[in-house]
Amino acid sequence: MADYRAPLADLDFALRTSGGLEALHALPAFAEVDAELVDQIVEEAGNVAAEVWAPLNHSGDQEGVRLDNGLVRTAQGFQDAYRSYVDSGFNTLPFDPEWGGQGLPWTLALALMEVWHSANTSLALNPMLTIGAVELLQAHGTPEQQATYLPKLITGEWTGTMNLSEPQAGSDLGQISCKAERADDGSYRITGQKIYITWGEHDLSENIVHMVLARLPDAPHGTKGLSLFLVPKFLPDADGNPGQRNDVRCTGLEHKMGIHACPTCTMSYGDDGGAVGYLIGKEHGGLTGMFTMMNNARLAVGVQGIGIAERAYQDARAYAFERMQAHDIHGGHESVPIVRHPNIRRKLLTMRALTEGGRALALYAGNAMDRAKQAEDADERARMKTRVDLLVPVVKAWCTDHGVEVASTAVQILGGMGFIEEGGVAQHYRDARIAPIYEGTNGIQALDLMGRKVLRDEGAGLHALLADLRAGLSDLDDISDHDLTAIRRAVARGLDQLEAAGETLISLARDDIAQSAAVADPFLELTGTVVAGALLAQQAGVAAQQMAAQESAPDQHRAKLAIARFYADNLLPRADAAAAQVRQGAASTLALDEKLL
Amino acid sequence: MADYRAPLADLDFALRTSGGLEALHALPAFAEVDAELVDQIVEEAGNVAAEVWAPLNHSGDQEGVRLDNGLVRTAQGFQDAYRSYVDSGFNTLPFDPEWGGQGLPWTLALALMEVWHSANTSLALNPMLTIGAVELLQAHGTPEQQATYLPKLITGEWTGTMNLSEPQAGSDLGQISCKAERADDGSYRITGQKIYITWGEHDLSENIVHMVLARLPDAPHGTKGLSLFLVPKFLPDADGNPGQRNDVRCTGLEHKMGIHACPTCTMSYGDDGGAVGYLIGKEHGGLTGMFTMMNNARLAVGVQGIGIAERAYQDARAYAFERMQAHDIHGGHESVPIVRHPNIRRKLLTMRALTEGGRALALYAGNAMDRAKQAEDADERARMKTRVDLLVPVVKAWCTDHGVEVASTAVQILGGMGFIEEGGVAQHYRDARIAPIYEGTNGIQALDLMGRKVLRDEGAGLHALLADLRAGLSDLDDISDHDLTAIRRAVARGLDQLEAAGETLISLARDDIAQSAAVADPFLELTGTVVAGALLAQQAGVAAQQMAAQESAPDQHRAKLAIARFYADNLLPRADAAAAQVRQGAASTLALDEKLL
Repeated sequence: MADYRAPLADLDFALRTSGGLEALHALPAFAEVDAELVDQIVEEAGNVAAEVWAPLNHSGDQEGVRLDNGLVRTAQGFQDAYRSYVDSGFNTLPFDPEWGGQGLPWTLALALMEVWHSANTSLALNPMLTIGAVELLQAHGTPEQQATYLPKLITGEWTGTMNLSEPQAGSDLGQISCKAERADDGSYRITGQKIYITWGEHDLSENIVHMVLARLPDAPHGTKGLSLFLVPKFLPDADGNPGQRNDVRCTGLEHKMGIHACPTCTMSYGDDGGAVGYLIGKEHGGLTGMFTMMNNARLAVGVQGIGIAERAYQDARAYAFERMQAHDIHGGHESVPIVRHPNIRRKLLTMRALTEGGRALALYAGNAMDRAKQAEDADERARMKTRVDLLVPVVKAWCTDHGVEVASTAVQILGGMGFIEEGGVAQHYRDARIAPIYEGTNGIQALDLMGRKVLRDEGAGLHALLADLRAGLSDLDDISDHDLTAIRRAVARGLDQLEAAGETLISLARDDIAQSAAVADPFLELTGTVVAGALLAQQAGVAAQQMAAQESAPDQHRAKLAIARFYADNLLPRADAAAAQVRQGAASTLALDEKLL
Repeated sequence: MADYRAPLADLDFALRTSGGLEALHALPAFAEVDAELVDQIVEEAGNVAAEVWAPLNHSGDQEGVRLDNGLVRTAQGFQDAYRSYVDSGFNTLPFDPEWGGQGLPWTLALALMEVWHSANTSLALNPMLTIGAVELLQAHGTPEQQATYLPKLITGEWTGTMNLSEPQAGSDLGQISCKAERADDGSYRITGQKIYITWGEHDLSENIVHMVLARLPDAPHGTKGLSLFLVPKFLPDADGNPGQRNDVRCTGLEHKMGIHACPTCTMSYGDDGGAVGYLIGKEHGGLTGMFTMMNNARLAVGVQGIGIAERAYQDARAYAFERMQAHDIHGGHESVPIVRHPNIRRKLLTMRALTEGGRALALYAGNAMDRAKQAEDADERARMKTRVDLLVPVVKAWCTDHGVEVASTAVQILGGMGFIEEGGVAQHYRDARIAPIYEGTNGIQALDLMGRKVLRDEGAGLHALLADLRAGLSDLDDISDHDLTAIRRAVARGLDQLEAAGETLISLARDDIAQSAAVADPFLELTGTVVAGALLAQQAGVAAQQMAAQESAPDQHRAKLAIARFYADNLLPRADAAAAQVRQGAASTLALDEKLL
């Protein structure tokens, strides 16, 4: 496999265009976030990722983790790798300076998350969960909770987890049965079992802070009876240092298809009478808290898909330049590198276009999230909140579905070596497969997009997005470039298809909500494909402008135009298929008797 | 995971419709192959597959194989499972009665192969390779070779392998460097290393017959210098029993992502002076021999994709009926099985439609193969030879690409349990991934379809296929059924798209062969999608006719109509995307400087 290198130039370009860094810089909150600072941070992260994290990816996969008398031992090198991440301050990036954060844009944080996931997705999941815990505490913690936990979670000295799933409660949180009881001192005692807890136990940090959904004795049924508790592995002592061991233990590790270096734990609460937990937010208000961190976490999982795709692309590209097989299709007797074969090029370009499309989508959503938090105008903040809410399920599902596709294509390019574990890309194919599942399955994302994001406001948020993307497209009208003209036309058609599909969705739902649910998956696929295409078109516009302004055509700008054109010609047609599926409606999906399936 | 059950009714229906069993029965060669006999054989195979092979699939994956002092030990139970297959005579089905075969149609043999691959794809690969060796010997062996080897290979007492790949020679056989030297006794001495040899060494049979491509000292460069040799593990003694150990050894096993119970061997020939080999066919004529078995082997690999898809479907369906999550979308407080959720139904139907489409495609190709061999009329044989040659790359690539997709969807339906190895479907996702790679990567299949099957005869074979499929479609004109009308319309449009794409392909190639090669992948995807759709339409026609002829609507017929309608509404739209990619041509694929990839 190839050595990973952070795609600094691509990240920089995507941050400046789709991520709208300059516009963020114009906000008072980000006045210090200039291009120089951003470049410096991305470059530093790229170095740590490439030199420290990436070399452990394959060895971590092979070695895995082990449960040793209740303690989880991580693979060789992981402790040091995590330490170098914490010591460099990377975990503090987007958080509140009040608690030791750097107050940098989420857009930038997402770009870096991609780098960590490319380098070592098993390890990157650890801070991903910690970030969720920080978000929860920033939004819903008491001042005391914040003072005790935030500084250590923000540095990454302590890590966080999310405890939702139970055997009977996966997508359906309403079935959670873990119990919480009120204690005399105002704290709670938690008992029950949680499963699939990512990094639920490990040896990377001196304390682990679990965020646990549980149910009080007098709780209403369903999701409205869930309360959220903070359950530290070690109860902080008077100085805030890890003190008494809490009554929570890892009782098992899952034997998974991928992310072998990441412990996926079964956690047992209260075997010795009850784990001490502290309420976050209100009793029976736990789901509100969870929703707070959900947008971030879902964007982060989407970025995981992009990160694995980028790594798979780098591996496949390197192999395609090295592997000599068959002569050039025009003739000759010399073997050529397989990159010279047109259908291998098609595969590589498909991988790259999907990866760059996903990156554009994620950073565009990150920008909306930053503006939703930091814009000066309240209307703008509200508008951007709607925007990010709409985009989150698309980023999560589209980028992870295509992360799997890109990893699978890498396996195909490596051929036999792709299927052999030592080739390295088999791991990407296995690792990538979790991302469409956790943090809300992609089916759940499609239903979220349909129900909460399109039907609820009758398409208003979608229309606002379409209007902005169309405005971005018409900004390109004056640029004279043959490729750009073709791209613009294809994207304009895609935007029309998306608009029509949104109307179909609303009209199906009026008839019967089951009908719109039956086309929710292709509607999400359509949305992601078209929005990513529109963002790549804008990138191409910037590239074309910069090429026109200078005499020479910098390589990067030519590449951006070519990728966007490839996307328009070869990936936007997938929107035709998805739009047709939406248009056909639900009849053929719902018709067959269940027993005949 | 669910217990596997052979889909007897579906196989029977597909054999009678797309497999055209009645038409085959009308041929003198198959006069005895009536419906009763076929049903009996399929049912018997289904029993052995379900009761003996299938229960070993997961345990074999977990246990794997080990190399023990040059011998390969298979997983627990595999010896008995293979023995029961041999003892029941299943290996003899399609072969020449002169050597102990049963002379049954390949169409039937392919249907059974699907069952073996569903039950245990690692084990099924063993007879798949033996079948290739038998084909080679039937076509190119000397009478002595045939008398010595065919009876034991046909029963399966001995097994066969194909030895093509070397580290530098994967898709590019011209780079094969294994050496052959003429010995005084008319035999040859083989030296060199082969890699990725499926079932190259094992403990299931008393002898293993290797078919080895190697190069004589005076051989021309490239593929025209390859000769084919039979190299038995044990040289047969005067009575035809395994005698002296030959100079060929397994020196390593690959650590693979899937098919763990199948040994993938590095084979070393001639470490002690040279392995004894016997020439098959002519010196320097080895590739001709290989091409003989290639059609069968490639159809068989396509069927592997279908087999894994069927098993993945059964597992996902069972889970969807068992797993209770969330209430019905229309309301209520009770959890319902997830099959009740519309987007889970969509996933299941997509899986089933792709599986049945692939099955129809493979059996239709099997029918063409049988007629190419057994039709009484020479013109018909030639026409069918063209047909099967055209369909082989489509079956191989389309069915295996969608085998991966279906397995991946099963993982998604199982959610967290899909990613955990004990859930069982993770294995399908890993196992399925090899099929697009070996026996000619799917990229090679796409180039074969383009070059040898469409460009070479300027689309004549494609047009003949289109004409037959259109004729089949117009046979349905008189049947009055609302679904069938919609299906017919969608398929007719697909056939038009395929015709246009064929013309585009030819016209691109006239300009520059690289341009057609750049769209070869979507052209193959288009072909498979449309032809499978047309075959499902014909199945739907049969179902509708039988429903009209009877008063009641048998469940199976309603299901066939519904599957075909679902395919028309939701999978044929993929043809739009593929057709658009072909139409856009190669410019965006070939434009970017290689160094900017």
